[in-house]
Amino acid sequence: MKELEKEILEKGIIINSEIVKIDSFLNHQINIELFMKIAQHFKKHFGDRKVDKIMTIETSGIALAFAAALEFKTKNLVFAKKNKSAITGDNVYKSEVYSFTKKKTNTITIDKMYVQPGENILIVDDFLAAGSAGCGLIDICRQAGANVVGFAVAVEKSFQGGRKKIEDLGVKVYSGASIKSIENGTIIFDHH
Amino acid sequence: MKELEKEILEKGIIINSEIVKIDSFLNHQINIELFMKIAQHFKKHFGDRKVDKIMTIETSGIALAFAAALEFKTKNLVFAKKNKSAITGDNVYKSEVYSFTKKKTNTITIDKMYVQPGENILIVDDFLAAGSAGCGLIDICRQAGANVVGFAVAVEKSFQGGRKKIEDLGVKVYSGASIKSIENGTIIFDHH
Repeated sequence: MKELEKEILEKGIIINSEIVKIDSFLNHQINIELFMKIAQHFKKHFGDRKVDKIMTIETSGIALAFAAALEFKTKNLVFAKKNKSAITGDNVYKSEVYSFTKKKTNTITIDKMYVQPGENILIVDDFLAAGSAGCGLIDICRQAGANVVGFAVAVEKSFQGGRKKIEDLGVKVYSGASIKSIENGTIIFDHH
Repeated sequence: MKELEKEILEKGIIINSEIVKIDSFLNHQINIELFMKIAQHFKKHFGDRKVDKIMTIETSGIALAFAAALEFKTKNLVFAKKNKSAITGDNVYKSEVYSFTKKKTNTITIDKMYVQPGENILIVDDFLAAGSAGCGLIDICRQAGANVVGFAVAVEKSFQGGRKKIEDLGVKVYSGASIKSIENGTIIFDHH
Protein backbone atom coordinates (compact mmCIF):
# COMPACT_ATOMS: atom_id res chain seq x y z
CA MET A 1 0.00 0.00 0.00
CA LYS A 2 1.30 3.36 -1.10
CA GLU A 3 0.70 5.29 2.16
CA LEU A 4 2.81 2.85 4.14
CA GLU A 5 5.65 2.75 1.59
CA LYS A 6 5.65 6.56 1.56
CA GLU A 7 5.86 6.68 5.37
CA ILE A 8 8.74 4.18 5.37
CA LEU A 9 10.65 6.21 2.76
CA GLU A 10 10.02 9.55 4.50
CA LYS A 11 10.51 8.54 8.14
CA GLY A 12 12.55 5.34 8.06
CA ILE A 13 16.10 5.56 9.38
CA ILE A 14 18.38 3.05 7.67
CA ILE A 15 20.60 1.37 10.28
CA ASN A 16 22.30 -1.17 7.99
CA SER A 17 21.49 -3.36 4.99
CA GLU A 18 19.06 -5.44 7.09
CA ILE A 19 17.46 -2.94 9.47
CA VAL A 20 15.40 0.17 8.87
CA LYS A 21 14.16 1.87 12.02
CA ILE A 22 10.51 2.89 11.65
CA ASP A 23 9.60 3.23 15.29
CA SER A 24 8.33 6.79 14.82
CA PHE A 25 5.08 5.34 13.48
CA LEU A 26 5.10 1.53 13.79
CA ASN A 27 6.35 0.14 17.08
CA HIS A 28 7.24 2.76 19.68
CA GLN A 29 5.24 5.76 18.61
CA ILE A 30 2.17 4.58 16.68
CA ASN A 31 0.36 6.51 13.94
CA ILE A 32 -3.33 5.81 14.59
CA GLU A 33 -4.73 6.80 11.20
CA LEU A 34 -2.08 4.80 9.35
CA PHE A 35 -2.84 1.73 11.49
CA MET A 36 -6.54 1.98 10.67
CA LYS A 37 -5.65 2.20 6.97
CA ILE A 38 -3.40 -0.87 7.22
CA ALA A 39 -6.25 -2.73 8.94
CA GLN A 40 -8.57 -1.70 6.08
CA HIS A 41 -6.11 -3.25 3.65
CA PHE A 42 -6.12 -6.46 5.72
CA LYS A 43 -9.89 -6.46 5.47
CA LYS A 44 -9.77 -5.87 1.71
CA HIS A 45 -7.40 -8.81 1.36
CA PHE A 46 -8.94 -11.33 3.76
CA GLY A 47 -12.46 -9.93 3.98
CA ASP A 48 -14.09 -12.76 2.04
CA ARG A 49 -13.15 -15.20 4.79
CA LYS A 50 -14.80 -15.67 8.16
CA VAL A 51 -12.65 -14.28 10.98
CA ASP A 52 -13.73 -14.97 14.57
CA LYS A 53 -10.67 -13.68 16.40
CA ILE A 54 -7.44 -11.75 15.86
CA MET A 55 -4.27 -13.26 17.34
CA THR A 56 -0.91 -11.53 17.81
CA ILE A 57 2.17 -11.61 20.02
CA GLU A 58 3.27 -9.03 22.55
CA THR A 59 4.45 -6.30 22.36
CA SER A 60 4.40 -4.49 19.11
CA GLY A 61 1.68 -6.50 17.38
CA ILE A 62 -1.01 -5.47 19.85
CA ALA A 63 -1.96 -2.04 18.50
CA LEU A 64 -2.31 -3.33 14.94
CA ALA A 65 -4.28 -6.34 16.20
CA PHE A 66 -6.69 -3.91 17.90
CA ALA A 67 -7.11 -1.95 14.65
CA ALA A 68 -7.70 -5.22 12.76
CA ALA A 69 -10.24 -6.43 15.34
CA LEU A 70 -12.21 -3.21 14.84
CA GLU A 71 -12.10 -3.62 11.07
CA PHE A 72 -13.10 -7.31 11.12
CA LYS A 73 -15.60 -6.64 13.93
CA THR A 74 -14.34 -9.55 16.01
CA LYS A 75 -15.43 -9.72 19.61
CA ASN A 76 -11.92 -10.35 20.95
CA LEU A 77 -8.24 -10.36 20.19
CA VAL A 78 -5.71 -12.50 22.01
CA PHE A 79 -1.99 -11.91 22.33
CA ALA A 80 0.65 -14.54 23.05
CA LYS A 81 2.89 -13.82 26.02
CA LYS A 82 6.67 -14.02 25.92
CA ASN A 83 7.15 -14.18 29.67
CA LYS A 84 5.10 -15.96 32.26
CA SER A 85 3.42 -13.51 34.60
CA ALA A 86 2.63 -14.14 38.24
CA ILE A 87 -0.89 -15.25 37.35
CA THR A 88 -0.30 -17.22 34.14
CA GLY A 89 -1.65 -20.68 34.80
CA ASP A 90 -0.28 -23.98 33.52
CA ASN A 91 -3.23 -24.54 31.24
CA VAL A 92 -1.48 -23.00 28.23
CA TYR A 93 -0.43 -23.79 24.69
CA LYS A 94 3.32 -23.24 24.20
CA SER A 95 5.66 -22.80 21.25
CA GLU A 96 9.37 -22.02 20.93
CA VAL A 97 10.23 -18.80 19.07
CA TYR A 98 13.73 -17.59 18.27
CA SER A 99 14.15 -13.81 18.15
CA PHE A 100 16.90 -12.73 15.74
CA THR A 101 16.95 -9.15 17.03
CA LYS A 102 17.26 -10.23 20.67
CA LYS A 103 19.24 -13.41 19.89
CA LYS A 104 17.33 -15.64 22.25
CA THR A 105 14.60 -18.26 22.27
CA ASN A 106 11.35 -17.40 24.00
CA THR A 107 8.66 -19.83 24.99
CA ILE A 108 5.48 -18.09 23.93
CA THR A 109 2.22 -19.05 25.62
CA ILE A 110 -1.51 -18.59 25.22
CA ASP A 111 -4.08 -19.70 27.79
CA LYS A 112 -6.02 -22.66 26.37
CA MET A 113 -9.28 -20.88 27.20
CA TYR A 114 -8.57 -18.23 24.56
CA VAL A 115 -8.03 -20.40 21.46
CA GLN A 116 -10.93 -22.70 20.73
CA PRO A 117 -11.17 -25.67 18.34
CA GLY A 118 -12.74 -24.56 15.07
CA GLU A 119 -12.20 -20.84 15.67
CA ASN A 120 -11.23 -18.91 12.54
CA ILE A 121 -8.16 -16.91 13.46
CA LEU A 122 -6.37 -14.14 11.58
CA ILE A 123 -2.81 -13.69 12.82
CA VAL A 124 -1.56 -10.09 12.81
CA ASP A 125 1.89 -8.66 13.48
CA ASP A 126 3.86 -5.48 12.87
CA PHE A 127 6.85 -7.13 11.15
CA LEU A 128 7.54 -10.27 9.15
CA ALA A 129 11.28 -10.99 8.94
CA ALA A 130 12.46 -14.58 9.47
CA GLY A 131 8.93 -15.69 10.32
CA SER A 132 9.64 -17.33 13.69
CA ALA A 133 6.89 -15.54 15.60
CA GLY A 134 4.34 -16.30 12.88
CA CYS A 135 5.29 -20.00 12.83
CA GLY A 136 4.94 -20.14 16.63
CA LEU A 137 1.45 -18.61 16.52
CA ILE A 138 0.36 -20.98 13.73
CA ASP A 139 1.73 -23.87 15.80
CA ILE A 140 -0.40 -22.78 18.77
CA CYS A 141 -3.53 -22.46 16.60
CA ARG A 142 -2.99 -25.97 15.27
CA GLN A 143 -2.41 -27.42 18.74
CA ALA A 144 -5.80 -25.95 19.63
CA GLY A 145 -7.51 -27.22 16.48
CA ALA A 146 -8.25 -23.65 15.39
CA ASN A 147 -8.28 -22.64 11.72
CA VAL A 148 -5.66 -20.09 10.59
CA VAL A 149 -7.37 -17.79 8.09
CA GLY A 150 -4.17 -15.95 7.17
CA PHE A 151 -1.17 -13.99 8.34
CA ALA A 152 -1.37 -10.22 7.97
CA VAL A 153 1.59 -7.95 8.69
CA ALA A 154 2.29 -4.27 8.30
CA VAL A 155 5.86 -4.54 7.01
CA GLU A 156 7.64 -7.52 5.50
CA LYS A 157 11.37 -7.80 4.89
CA SER A 158 11.12 -10.26 2.01
CA PHE A 159 14.88 -10.88 1.88
CA GLN A 160 14.72 -12.64 5.28
CA GLY A 161 12.63 -15.59 4.12
CA GLY A 162 9.71 -15.42 6.53
CA ARG A 163 6.99 -15.48 3.86
CA LYS A 164 8.15 -18.82 2.48
CA LYS A 165 8.18 -20.39 5.96
CA ILE A 166 4.61 -19.27 6.63
CA GLU A 167 3.37 -20.27 3.17
CA ASP A 168 5.03 -23.68 3.52
CA LEU A 169 2.68 -24.19 6.47
CA GLY A 170 -0.22 -23.61 4.09
CA VAL A 171 -1.04 -20.10 5.36
CA LYS A 172 -1.60 -17.10 3.08
CA VAL A 173 0.48 -14.00 3.80
CA TYR A 174 -0.42 -10.36 3.23
CA SER A 175 1.91 -7.45 3.96
CA GLY A 176 1.10 -3.75 3.73
CA ALA A 177 4.62 -3.05 2.48
CA SER A 178 7.33 -5.49 1.44
CA ILE A 179 10.96 -4.42 1.59
CA LYS A 180 13.00 -6.28 -1.02
CA SER A 181 16.37 -4.78 -0.16
CA ILE A 182 18.14 -1.96 1.63
CA GLU A 183 21.17 -1.04 -0.46
CA ASN A 184 23.42 2.02 -0.49
CA GLY A 185 20.95 3.92 1.64
CA THR A 186 17.99 3.10 -0.62
CA ILE A 187 14.94 1.04 0.30
CA ILE A 188 13.52 -1.02 -2.57
CA PHE A 189 10.01 -2.47 -2.29
CA ASP A 190 8.57 -5.44 -4.10
CA HIS A 191 4.90 -6.07 -4.82
CA HIS A 192 3.55 -9.57 -4.37
CA MET B 1 -18.77 2.21 34.95
CA LYS B 2 -21.39 -0.49 35.30
CA GLU B 3 -20.42 -2.59 32.22
CA LEU B 4 -16.87 -3.04 33.47
CA GLU B 5 -17.90 -3.84 37.05
CA LYS B 6 -20.36 -6.40 35.67
CA GLU B 7 -17.63 -8.02 33.53
CA ILE B 8 -15.27 -8.19 36.54
CA LEU B 9 -17.95 -9.81 38.69
CA GLU B 10 -19.00 -12.28 35.99
CA LYS B 11 -15.61 -13.26 34.59
CA GLY B 12 -13.06 -12.39 37.26
CA ILE B 13 -11.32 -15.27 38.98
CA ILE B 14 -10.33 -14.43 42.52
CA ILE B 15 -6.79 -15.67 43.20
CA ASN B 16 -6.38 -14.21 46.69
CA SER B 17 -7.33 -11.10 48.68
CA GLU B 18 -5.12 -8.92 46.45
CA ILE B 19 -5.43 -10.44 42.98
CA VAL B 20 -8.40 -11.01 40.72
CA LYS B 21 -7.55 -12.52 37.35
CA ILE B 22 -9.44 -10.73 34.57
CA ASP B 23 -7.30 -11.70 31.63
CA SER B 24 -10.25 -13.13 29.71
CA PHE B 25 -11.17 -9.57 28.68
CA LEU B 26 -8.47 -7.13 29.90
CA ASN B 27 -4.90 -8.20 29.36
CA HIS B 28 -4.46 -11.48 27.54
CA GLN B 29 -7.66 -11.84 25.62
CA ILE B 30 -9.12 -8.37 24.98
CA ASN B 31 -12.81 -7.51 24.58
CA ILE B 32 -12.86 -4.92 21.78
CA GLU B 33 -16.31 -3.43 22.42
CA LEU B 34 -15.66 -3.12 26.15
CA PHE B 35 -12.35 -1.33 25.47
CA MET B 36 -14.09 1.17 23.18
CA LYS B 37 -16.66 1.80 25.93
CA ILE B 38 -13.91 2.33 28.53
CA ALA B 39 -12.25 4.80 26.15
CA GLN B 40 -15.57 6.64 25.78
CA HIS B 41 -15.68 6.99 29.56
CA PHE B 42 -12.14 8.40 29.52
CA LYS B 43 -13.32 10.91 26.93
CA LYS B 44 -16.35 11.82 29.02
CA HIS B 45 -14.11 12.41 32.00
CA PHE B 46 -11.16 14.23 30.40
CA GLY B 47 -12.82 15.45 27.21
CA ASP B 48 -12.85 19.12 28.22
CA ARG B 49 -9.05 19.13 28.17
CA LYS B 50 -6.76 19.31 25.16
CA VAL B 51 -5.05 15.96 24.55
CA ASP B 52 -2.30 15.79 21.91
CA LYS B 53 -1.02 12.30 22.56
CA ILE B 54 -1.78 9.12 24.51
CA MET B 55 1.08 7.56 26.47
CA THR B 56 1.21 4.09 27.97
CA ILE B 57 3.66 1.35 28.94
CA GLU B 58 4.13 -2.04 27.32
CA THR B 59 2.57 -4.55 27.23
CA SER B 60 -0.96 -4.57 28.46
CA GLY B 61 -1.63 -0.82 28.26
CA ILE B 62 -1.23 -0.70 24.49
CA ALA B 63 -4.65 -1.92 23.34
CA LEU B 64 -6.49 0.47 25.67
CA ALA B 65 -4.17 3.31 24.60
CA PHE B 66 -5.14 2.59 20.99
CA ALA B 67 -8.85 2.73 21.87
CA ALA B 68 -8.28 6.01 23.75
CA ALA B 69 -6.31 7.51 20.85
CA LEU B 70 -9.26 6.79 18.53
CA GLU B 71 -11.68 8.34 21.01
CA PHE B 72 -9.55 11.49 21.60
CA LYS B 73 -8.62 11.62 17.89
CA THR B 74 -4.91 12.02 18.63
CA LYS B 75 -2.49 11.51 15.78
CA ASN B 76 -0.20 9.19 17.77
CA LEU B 77 0.24 7.12 20.86
CA VAL B 78 3.59 6.27 22.39
CA PHE B 79 4.42 3.36 24.67
CA ALA B 80 7.33 3.19 27.12
CA LYS B 81 9.59 0.18 26.73
CA LYS B 82 10.66 -2.06 29.58
CA ASN B 83 13.59 -3.63 27.77
CA LYS B 84 16.08 -2.03 25.43
CA SER B 85 15.72 -3.46 21.92
CA ALA B 86 18.55 -3.85 19.42
CA ILE B 87 17.69 -0.52 17.84
CA THR B 88 16.79 1.58 20.88
CA GLY B 89 19.10 4.57 20.76
CA ASP B 90 20.68 6.36 23.72
CA ASN B 91 18.60 9.44 23.15
CA VAL B 92 15.92 8.37 25.62
CA TYR B 93 14.15 9.52 28.75
CA LYS B 94 14.42 6.95 31.56
CA SER B 95 12.65 6.22 34.81
CA GLU B 96 12.88 3.42 37.38
CA VAL B 97 9.71 1.40 37.94
CA TYR B 98 9.28 -1.37 40.49
CA SER B 99 6.88 -4.15 39.48
CA PHE B 100 5.18 -5.76 42.47
CA THR B 101 3.81 -8.68 40.44
CA LYS B 102 7.21 -9.47 38.90
CA LYS B 103 9.22 -8.34 41.95
CA LYS B 104 11.87 -6.46 40.03
CA THR B 105 12.84 -2.96 39.00
CA ASN B 106 12.66 -2.08 35.31
CA THR B 107 14.23 0.92 33.69
CA ILE B 108 11.51 2.16 31.38
CA THR B 109 12.49 4.30 28.39
CA ILE B 110 10.91 6.52 25.76
CA ASP B 111 12.80 7.98 22.80
CA LYS B 112 13.15 11.75 23.32
CA MET B 113 11.74 12.33 19.84
CA TYR B 114 8.34 11.04 20.92
CA VAL B 115 7.65 13.29 23.94
CA GLN B 116 7.82 16.96 23.11
CA PRO B 117 7.93 19.98 25.44
CA GLY B 118 4.47 21.46 25.82
CA GLU B 119 2.66 18.38 24.50
CA ASN B 120 -0.58 17.60 26.34
CA ILE B 121 -0.39 13.94 27.28
CA LEU B 122 -3.06 11.62 28.67
CA ILE B 123 -1.51 8.58 30.34
CA VAL B 124 -3.50 5.35 29.95
CA ASP B 125 -3.01 1.92 31.50
CA ASP B 126 -4.97 -1.26 32.12
CA PHE B 127 -4.35 -1.43 35.89
CA LEU B 128 -3.60 0.96 38.73
CA ALA B 129 -2.31 -0.86 41.79
CA ALA B 130 0.67 0.62 43.65
CA GLY B 131 1.08 3.33 41.01
CA SER B 132 4.74 2.72 40.13
CA ALA B 133 4.25 2.60 36.36
CA GLY B 134 2.11 5.73 36.41
CA CYS B 135 4.69 7.63 38.47
CA GLY B 136 7.42 6.56 36.04
CA LEU B 137 5.45 7.81 33.04
CA ILE B 138 4.66 11.11 34.76
CA ASP B 139 8.38 11.44 35.57
CA ILE B 140 9.25 10.99 31.89
CA CYS B 141 6.66 13.57 30.78
CA ARG B 142 8.08 16.08 33.25
CA GLN B 143 11.68 15.43 32.16
CA ALA B 144 10.47 16.27 28.65
CA GLY B 145 8.57 19.38 29.73
CA ALA B 146 5.30 17.83 28.53
CA ASN B 147 2.00 18.52 30.30
CA VAL B 148 0.25 15.55 31.94
CA VAL B 149 -3.49 15.99 31.34
CA GLY B 150 -4.47 13.04 33.52
CA PHE B 151 -4.10 9.36 34.28
CA ALA B 152 -6.85 7.08 32.97
CA VAL B 153 -7.00 3.39 33.84
CA ALA B 154 -9.46 0.60 33.25
CA VAL B 155 -9.27 -1.05 36.68
CA GLU B 156 -7.98 0.38 39.94
CA LYS B 157 -7.25 -1.59 43.08
CA SER B 158 -7.82 1.26 45.49
CA PHE B 159 -6.51 -0.67 48.51
CA GLN B 160 -2.98 -0.62 47.06
CA GLY B 161 -2.46 3.12 47.30
CA GLY B 162 -1.62 4.01 43.70
CA ARG B 163 -4.22 6.77 43.34
CA LYS B 164 -2.76 8.79 46.20
CA LYS B 165 0.77 8.56 44.75
CA ILE B 166 -0.43 9.83 41.36
CA GLU B 167 -2.61 12.58 42.88
CA ASP B 168 0.28 13.68 45.11
CA LEU B 169 2.12 14.47 41.87
CA GLY B 170 -0.74 16.80 40.96
CA VAL B 171 -2.29 14.50 38.35
CA LYS B 172 -6.01 13.66 38.19
CA VAL B 173 -6.93 9.97 38.14
CA TYR B 174 -9.92 8.30 36.50
CA SER B 175 -10.65 4.58 36.68
CA GLY B 176 -13.40 2.67 34.89
CA ALA B 177 -13.81 0.39 37.91
CA SER B 178 -12.28 0.69 41.36
CA ILE B 179 -11.90 -2.42 43.50
CA LYS B 180 -12.04 -1.52 47.18
CA SER B 181 -11.50 -5.01 48.55
CA ILE B 182 -11.54 -8.69 47.75
CA GLU B 183 -12.83 -10.50 50.83
CA ASN B 184 -14.22 -14.00 51.34
CA GLY B 185 -14.56 -14.46 47.61
CA THR B 186 -16.44 -11.19 47.12
CA ILE B 187 -15.28 -8.17 45.14
CA ILE B 188 -16.39 -4.82 46.54
CA PHE B 189 -16.20 -1.70 44.36
CA ASP B 190 -15.98 1.88 45.50
CA HIS B 191 -17.07 4.93 43.53
CA HIS B 192 -14.85 8.00 43.60
